[in-house]
Amino acid sequence: MRFDIVTLFPDFFDSPLSSGLLGKAIAKQIATVHLVNPRDFTTDKHHKVDDEPYGGGVGMLMKPEPIFAAVESLPVLPQRQVILLTPQGQTMNQRLFQELALGFNQLVLICGHYEGIDERVLHLVDREVSLGDFVLTCGEIPALTLLNGVIRLLPGTVGKEESLKLESFEAGLLDYPQYTRPADFRGWKVPDVLLSGNHQAIAQWRKEQQIQRTRDRRPDLWEVWVKECGE
Amino acid sequence: MRFDIVTLFPDFFDSPLSSGLLGKAIAKQIATVHLVNPRDFTTDKHHKVDDEPYGGGVGMLMKPEPIFAAVESLPVLPQRQVILLTPQGQTMNQRLFQELALGFNQLVLICGHYEGIDERVLHLVDREVSLGDFVLTCGEIPALTLLNGVIRLLPGTVGKEESLKLESFEAGLLDYPQYTRPADFRGWKVPDVLLSGNHQAIAQWRKEQQIQRTRDRRPDLWEVWVKECGE
Repeated sequence: MRFDIVTLFPDFFDSPLSSGLLGKAIAKQIATVHLVNPRDFTTDKHHKVDDEPYGGGVGMLMKPEPIFAAVESLPVLPQRQVILLTPQGQTMNQRLFQELALGFNQLVLICGHYEGIDERVLHLVDREVSLGDFVLTCGEIPALTLLNGVIRLLPGTVGKEESLKLESFEAGLLDYPQYTRPADFRGWKVPDVLLSGNHQAIAQWRKEQQIQRTRDRRPDLWEVWVKECGE
Repeated sequence: MRFDIVTLFPDFFDSPLSSGLLGKAIAKQIATVHLVNPRDFTTDKHHKVDDEPYGGGVGMLMKPEPIFAAVESLPVLPQRQVILLTPQGQTMNQRLFQELALGFNQLVLICGHYEGIDERVLHLVDREVSLGDFVLTCGEIPALTLLNGVIRLLPGTVGKEESLKLESFEAGLLDYPQYTRPADFRGWKVPDVLLSGNHQAIAQWRKEQQIQRTRDRRPDLWEVWVKECGE
């Protein structure tokens, strides 16, 4: 899968793309990541990428021309999706990551900056995506999140395919509590059932914990789960 | 403000912490960021930080001892909050960032890894926080997001304080469309009202756009806004 990240701060990505599982997946060429800087596509001598907003207001906006030129410089693979990272978009979730991992060969991710981006950039864009209901200094973090979540689903990134299936949100529920050695740590003990060797009892306990936690902590997810899969 | 990030992959943070506005804020010492690696607190010769889950299952869990030792090695400032980044936590939003920026002097951020983390780590933790309803390969991205969103709110990070007030989510609504030069770009024109010089008409148009967009795209936010501030 090919990713093109349109960013004014390509250096931001240096260490995240070479660290941990994501770094390994890129080294194995499960995904390729290309960084393209709109500043390299400016035509004035000051390489200006921002300008004042029409109608007044504080802060600067990203100009449309350098972004259009940057995106138009990229190759176009079949099954391409151009995504603008913006708090005004649809909120990222596991279903979106699955859809993008399965349905596309190329994702172009446009990172916003300054106070925002000229609205006409939307003519380039298939979809606006938001990381969450908050404001950050840059769109690089949302782009990195989407990149990580999608690459994680590509075959070969995570060692055993089973470990993808059992996790949070795949089943619409939060995860169950997990324990490893020692069985007694500072007086806090691992629940007896997990030491019992009774696989059926363990599976039942875990499912109950998932349901109870989701109901207590995320009634919004729990309601959806009850409708779709509830007993 | 002091941040301590408990992470098995401290290198991940190299370039994000030196790039853009966040890099500038750290250079100006608006915030200090300390990285602490649980692996440095292991006592066995293989520096083992993970182990198999009790009760069976795929993948490895982070052991409790190295995390306890790492967190217990840190200084404790007054107004400290220890946060575990996990998909099981409360979802990050602007209100949480504001609460953390205003109420605390030290945030300790524990990044999960592998298939999860031993449940008893919660005895160390004041709060569990989730980036969103999805799974990533690591907790470093959620930690970086929280760090960025909180540091952004500290005095001195963003140039003009007004620009904090007018943005998405501060008023419970999505942002209005913004435009900069040129007034006509490839035949797509800036709306006339923004060129009118009529400040009252501009303010009204922007407010209407905010309400309409939020209602269309995020009925969940719109309902809250109507209840709290609607006319």
